[in-house]
Amino acid sequence: MMKKFMNKAEDFIPEMLAGYYAAHPDYVKPVDNNLRCLCAVHKKPGKVALATGGGSGHLPLFLGYVGKGMLDGCAIGGVFQSPSADEMLNVTKAIDQGSGVLYIYGNYNGDIFNFTMAAEMADMEADIEVRSIIAGEDAASGPRAAAGEKNVRRGVAGIFFVYKIAGAAADQLLPLDEVERLAKKASERVSTMGAALTPCTVPRIGHPSFTIGDDEMEIGMGIHGEAGLRRGPLLSADAIVEEILPALIDDLKLNAQDEAAVLINGLGATPLEEQYLINRKVNELLTKAGISVYKTYVGEYATSLEMAGMSITLFKLDDELKPLLDAQADTPLFKQFGR
Amino acid sequence: MMKKFMNKAEDFIPEMLAGYYAAHPDYVKPVDNNLRCLCAVHKKPGKVALATGGGSGHLPLFLGYVGKGMLDGCAIGGVFQSPSADEMLNVTKAIDQGSGVLYIYGNYNGDIFNFTMAAEMADMEADIEVRSIIAGEDAASGPRAAAGEKNVRRGVAGIFFVYKIAGAAADQLLPLDEVERLAKKASERVSTMGAALTPCTVPRIGHPSFTIGDDEMEIGMGIHGEAGLRRGPLLSADAIVEEILPALIDDLKLNAQDEAAVLINGLGATPLEEQYLINRKVNELLTKAGISVYKTYVGEYATSLEMAGMSITLFKLDDELKPLLDAQADTPLFKQFGR
Repeated sequence: MMKKFMNKAEDFIPEMLAGYYAAHPDYVKPVDNNLRCLCAVHKKPGKVALATGGGSGHLPLFLGYVGKGMLDGCAIGGVFQSPSADEMLNVTKAIDQGSGVLYIYGNYNGDIFNFTMAAEMADMEADIEVRSIIAGEDAASGPRAAAGEKNVRRGVAGIFFVYKIAGAAADQLLPLDEVERLAKKASERVSTMGAALTPCTVPRIGHPSFTIGDDEMEIGMGIHGEAGLRRGPLLSADAIVEEILPALIDDLKLNAQDEAAVLINGLGATPLEEQYLINRKVNELLTKAGISVYKTYVGEYATSLEMAGMSITLFKLDDELKPLLDAQADTPLFKQFGR
Repeated sequence: MMKKFMNKAEDFIPEMLAGYYAAHPDYVKPVDNNLRCLCAVHKKPGKVALATGGGSGHLPLFLGYVGKGMLDGCAIGGVFQSPSADEMLNVTKAIDQGSGVLYIYGNYNGDIFNFTMAAEMADMEADIEVRSIIAGEDAASGPRAAAGEKNVRRGVAGIFFVYKIAGAAADQLLPLDEVERLAKKASERVSTMGAALTPCTVPRIGHPSFTIGDDEMEIGMGIHGEAGLRRGPLLSADAIVEEILPALIDDLKLNAQDEAAVLINGLGATPLEEQYLINRKVNELLTKAGISVYKTYVGEYATSLEMAGMSITLFKLDDELKPLLDAQADTPLFKQFGR
């Protein structure tokens, strides 16, 4: 039996959203009374507007990052479902201030289809210039795209760093070209891999979306339960980190003297204690490789409902990116005091 | 089988703590190289020092609130076990600045025994004046103490509000008497009740600490699995809120025109989506009762490892408490921009 705090399954998203607006009236409001279309209450005049969108079930992704210093708007779909092109268009119109709009979203076909259409409609109907960054950095889901190649990787927790960099750039009133360039740069410098211990249950389906043995784990599983690199016996935390981390270091071509930010992300049911325990080994291996840890984030940044699991993201930094990463941000589900 | 990211069970806490210090070197450091004794890196000269302590397994409780604008130090025990009197004493010595120390901790016998001893030793050995606030506000665990009576209630998530108020008061350089008075006032104005759907597993035990049927929930369960008010079939989220909220309103004698802060707390495995869905009904019922919601907090504030469950806390406010609640705080696991 599905054990969730919910009423009717079909009301799960509207009721969640109603509770979100009730909790954070100083931060967000719905666009045109459609709860699935959020925009920030606070507007910084003249800035490039940033929008994201995607399915529900991943909080704090996506709506939790709409606020000051990060995103301006978000369209939300059903659990693990893309919002519509019309919803993304309405968000786009609500947040544009004449300086253009940048979409940042995950590499999923439904989202690409809808947000591409929304961008075209925004151009035709409202003369809004929209650019798009499609974030996909799950190193378990395919090889890194070579120059000019299509990126086949799924977008997972690393999109947080793309939001953070683009959000800080837009907050500094940089023009659309620059915000886009920096977001793209960030997206090419993140790499993620995770491990899942249990499945999760979509409310309208009512049973787990897959099964995984009582003594098994899956390395590289996606945040909708997509198949990972391999399934095998549950290893120790250190052994899991020793498998994942070298793959990320290799993927980003990190060398001694390089600096990176670390994100240990819980997928839903994994206690913070276990995430910190994982960070111990991550920090140790990076230090041993001579890679300097500039900043560490631990907690839930992109979840999969109540899935037990975690992902590790590395973000390769340079002197241009560090001040943007350090900039102040204040949203309902992410807060950082500036340096 | 126990599915956790861990190595040897006996290393769970030291490895978690090592990962915590590695993640947050700008905020905390160990006292005398004992990882179980944390103190804040940042010291505000002359302020009353605030300390807490308690068992592990409740992150962000307890150590996550050590930082700026909240607590100055913390002693951490094993999972669900009190730290020792000596550890609390060492924290006390490390954080005292000559203005006295206030302990704020949960109403559990082990903690009371050890922290009372630590306070006596601090007085005798180091001439440090220590006062104590024992927070206990789980309305499901016993009746509210009358004046002069011993408080029998368990301490749960509501201690967050006591930390916040005392932390802001100390940050304003108020004297020990005032910080103590305000912390006591806050502790008497919080009331909590929760519902649990699943048990959790202590790493060194390796199996769930209790069982609960696939279609059952327990109202009022404690954060170590202590028996609650009643066990019964899993109800809808709205029905659960309709059972809990009136009990809290009654306990705090909240009337129309009163103002309260709300905390919807996840116990570990409950997705943020469900917590927000619960907030919708909480907000609706408070509004209907004419009680004004001054501020809402949603997320994990006091957990029980990977237990699925949530608690609702109300905090009755007045004009003295509101600015303290609104004050800026910056710790690894709680951040709030000041108003």
